[in-house]
Amino acid sequence: MQHFLNTQDWTRAELDALLTQAALFKRNPIGDALKGKSIALLFFNPSLRTRTSFELGAFQLGGHAVVLQPGKDAWPIEFDFGTVMDGEAEEHVAEVARVLGRYVDLVGVRAFPKFVDWSVDREDRVLRAFAEHSPVPVINMETITHPCQELAHAMALQEHFGTTDLRGRKYVLTWTYHPKPLNTAVANSALTIATRMGMDVTLLCPTEDYLLDERYLGWAKQNVAENGGSFAVSHDIAAAYAGADIVYAKSWGALPFFGNWAPEKPIRDQHRHFIVDEAKMALTNDGVFSHCLPLRRNVKATDAVMDSKHCIAIEEAENRLHVQKAVMAALIAQG
Amino acid sequence: MQHFLNTQDWTRAELDALLTQAALFKRNPIGDALKGKSIALLFFNPSLRTRTSFELGAFQLGGHAVVLQPGKDAWPIEFDFGTVMDGEAEEHVAEVARVLGRYVDLVGVRAFPKFVDWSVDREDRVLRAFAEHSPVPVINMETITHPCQELAHAMALQEHFGTTDLRGRKYVLTWTYHPKPLNTAVANSALTIATRMGMDVTLLCPTEDYLLDERYLGWAKQNVAENGGSFAVSHDIAAAYAGADIVYAKSWGALPFFGNWAPEKPIRDQHRHFIVDEAKMALTNDGVFSHCLPLRRNVKATDAVMDSKHCIAIEEAENRLHVQKAVMAALIAQG
Amino acid sequence: MQHFLNTQDWTRAELDALLTQAALFKRNPIGDALKGKSIALLFFNPSLRTRTSFELGAFQLGGHAVVLQPGKDAWPIEFDFGTVMDGEAEEHVAEVARVLGRYVDLVGVRAFPKFVDWSVDREDRVLRAFAEHSPVPVINMETITHPCQELAHAMALQEHFGTTDLRGRKYVLTWTYHPKPLNTAVANSALTIATRMGMDVTLLCPTEDYLLDERYLGWAKQNVAENGGSFAVSHDIAAAYAGADIVYAKSWGALPFFGNWAPEKPIRDQHRHFIVDEAKMALTNDGVFSHCLPLRRNVKATDAVMDSKHCIAIEEAENRLHVQKAVMAALIAQG
Repeated sequence: MQHFLNTQDWTRAELDALLTQAALFKRNPIGDALKGKSIALLFFNPSLRTRTSFELGAFQLGGHAVVLQPGKDAWPIEFDFGTVMDGEAEEHVAEVARVLGRYVDLVGVRAFPKFVDWSVDREDRVLRAFAEHSPVPVINMETITHPCQELAHAMALQEHFGTTDLRGRKYVLTWTYHPKPLNTAVANSALTIATRMGMDVTLLCPTEDYLLDERYLGWAKQNVAENGGSFAVSHDIAAAYAGADIVYAKSWGALPFFGNWAPEKPIRDQHRHFIVDEAKMALTNDGVFSHCLPLRRNVKATDAVMDSKHCIAIEEAENRLHVQKAVMAALIAQG
Repeated sequence: MQHFLNTQDWTRAELDALLTQAALFKRNPIGDALKGKSIALLFFNPSLRTRTSFELGAFQLGGHAVVLQPGKDAWPIEFDFGTVMDGEAEEHVAEVARVLGRYVDLVGVRAFPKFVDWSVDREDRVLRAFAEHSPVPVINMETITHPCQELAHAMALQEHFGTTDLRGRKYVLTWTYHPKPLNTAVANSALTIATRMGMDVTLLCPTEDYLLDERYLGWAKQNVAENGGSFAVSHDIAAAYAGADIVYAKSWGALPFFGNWAPEKPIRDQHRHFIVDEAKMALTNDGVFSHCLPLRRNVKATDAVMDSKHCIAIEEAENRLHVQKAVMAALIAQG
Repeated sequence: MQHFLNTQDWTRAELDALLTQAALFKRNPIGDALKGKSIALLFFNPSLRTRTSFELGAFQLGGHAVVLQPGKDAWPIEFDFGTVMDGEAEEHVAEVARVLGRYVDLVGVRAFPKFVDWSVDREDRVLRAFAEHSPVPVINMETITHPCQELAHAMALQEHFGTTDLRGRKYVLTWTYHPKPLNTAVANSALTIATRMGMDVTLLCPTEDYLLDERYLGWAKQNVAENGGSFAVSHDIAAAYAGADIVYAKSWGALPFFGNWAPEKPIRDQHRHFIVDEAKMALTNDGVFSHCLPLRRNVKATDAVMDSKHCIAIEEAENRLHVQKAVMAALIAQG
């Protein structure tokens, strides 16, 4: 049984098939691929796009999504094994996953890091635990990576450039400011899918502190080795933007300060100028801009960039619906 | 593209058509006017009737409603333009409205006043912002007016009197006590629809302080000019109830004290006797009583009034379902 | 009009018919028994299984469930009659039940005790108030009993033993430790259904303080009189487990300390050894173990018991879906 935990677990041919199916769903949104089927959407963190697009995707294909928020409208869950459960958690993931698997055909999980200890969060325990115990396929709705966003992003780029072949494009993933340290998930994912698509990828970030986890840097290098393209790190804004075809922005907290954010704040605050603005975009090759959303205007990117014709963030957000329908349909079809 | 923000934006013929369609839906609740379509229901405030009736209305017509609570299960939203978003809001309404418009066919918005500054709240910014940025029709699910309630109220009166022609009926909108200052939305709406229907309308309230905003007093006067009937203000309970065909009750906070409620409390507390009771109802012309609900029994109206055969509040609440289906169907049909 | 408040209100033939229908739904989950119909699910307390299984059950039969959380996303509700509603509650159950009854075809209610005064909680006021005022059938989704769990439990036992006839089976309901005092609902229900099925039932609990309310002890005795089998109370773990065919575990707070839990804690803490473990299960007649879930592992039962082939808690949880579909279909069919 195949889960959808990371794009890296899927072959390039499988990913291409998902993108092809997504394009078909975009033209013909109503179908019966999930007729009578259901998906449980477990949100340990808030959501607007993910919630709406999964719920509607299930509906449009004849299925039904049940939205659960453990710890809020459902019981808090234990993820450690062998523990004496005398704390807050009323139920173990083993039971939650097994029971849900009796009710539904798919399980989606959103579980952000706890931001205390990256060595723990990087194990992606919540997602892994569901995948281990669930008798039905599990979909990553964003944990420490965001593979659904990856597909939506790739689809938007393919639409923008009018070709499924993105090789040779100069792709910049730029860190950008946010008042709080955020999850690295979308940054990890952007690197993963951009290198998977064989593009020439630059990770632009303020300092070495903002490098991503070695697992994802490793995936990027592995993807370059297998798919062509290139991967480089830069701290030079002008050099990175120069001639770029694609600028993708994301803010994240520096991993060396994970869980101890006080000393990171002054570093972060010194790099507010990483905001994506018209001056920087003017350095690109008439480049396209995107972001996974939500985005704080005039903090991560200026109004002018967001409202320009080069911004495809709304297209990318729309594509979440289409790619997720493709993922759900593919996982159901394997059954 | 037509939104449903206020009844005043719609012609009388259009409103009559909605009421006619609602009556048909009441007889035949199941249909396919929203087949494969969807609506996002954004609740910035709690709801029982609105939530249930919209969600079921969509289902009964073959569609699907996605319920979102920004700031609770979805991201908090920014409504000002040009601001540097370094506060609580993670996302701007421009993106929220545009993205939702890619997923759904309709957007409903419930956004009560913030009760700090009426000069701000009276601009109805949240609703206006969605209407401005949404590529799909927006429905007012109660902001500073409540047009869906207006239609449900008019429909219940037409049913009660057995005629769609309500001209010549004596209609009293009475302020009534509530321990907290409440939104003027339903009061604004009651005045608007009652005068629109050509009735002889009295606004009964404790003092001049409880007059409604000039915008809605102006709509009432404009409606009288165009539709006949009359409009008057009274602070005399006995005179206002005398011979009334319809008593509609609502509590609201006095606008001169908006955001500075301490000095209003003793005034409000002096007028607990505005409660709708049997003695007052006995002054009417065998009058019918209604209220938008929720209603605090024995505070706004007595048990005896609520449980009497003259109370049509439950009918009015039921009609929310039917009129909202008519509104959704009409907005979808224009597409 | 028949509600589903307690199994004790239904004849044995009616319960058997529900279990038969549930078995059919387990084989053929998709149907149209609720086509175009709807149920409101009111959760005054959190839920995972109940929420998911009711929502999916409605969907699989062509209907729709609306999930409401009064006091969270809907208005707080008043349940006393004749009161002046100047506290927190914005709406009376009389209106809530009547209005919902205009929108939906069924109403489900989950309302746990308030744990202040058992003489109040034992009246099951919230459920009773809905049943009294609702024009449509009401389903108990767990209050001070849990009849849906009863049916799921009985169904799992019938499946395990390969026969609908459970007479002659030795059934032990054992109290088990939990750090907090819990609801007696499932314990009350286990006694009720086990005696109803004619089994030889032992209530195993630490002391007389942990006896259940006389209403449910009375139902147990009445069921024995009418259905055969037996009912006894024991505080001797080894004797109670000896030769048992079925061990059902549940933790609950001792009623004499209801609302004044401090002096109960040391008593409770002395009985941690009531945990269901392999040593105890070895005393049984190759007995089957179950629990309603959620369950704290290594507090109520050990990992070894939960992960053994004798544990049918997951089957029981799955059966919630099937029996509730049978209940909904039966209540709709009477209309």
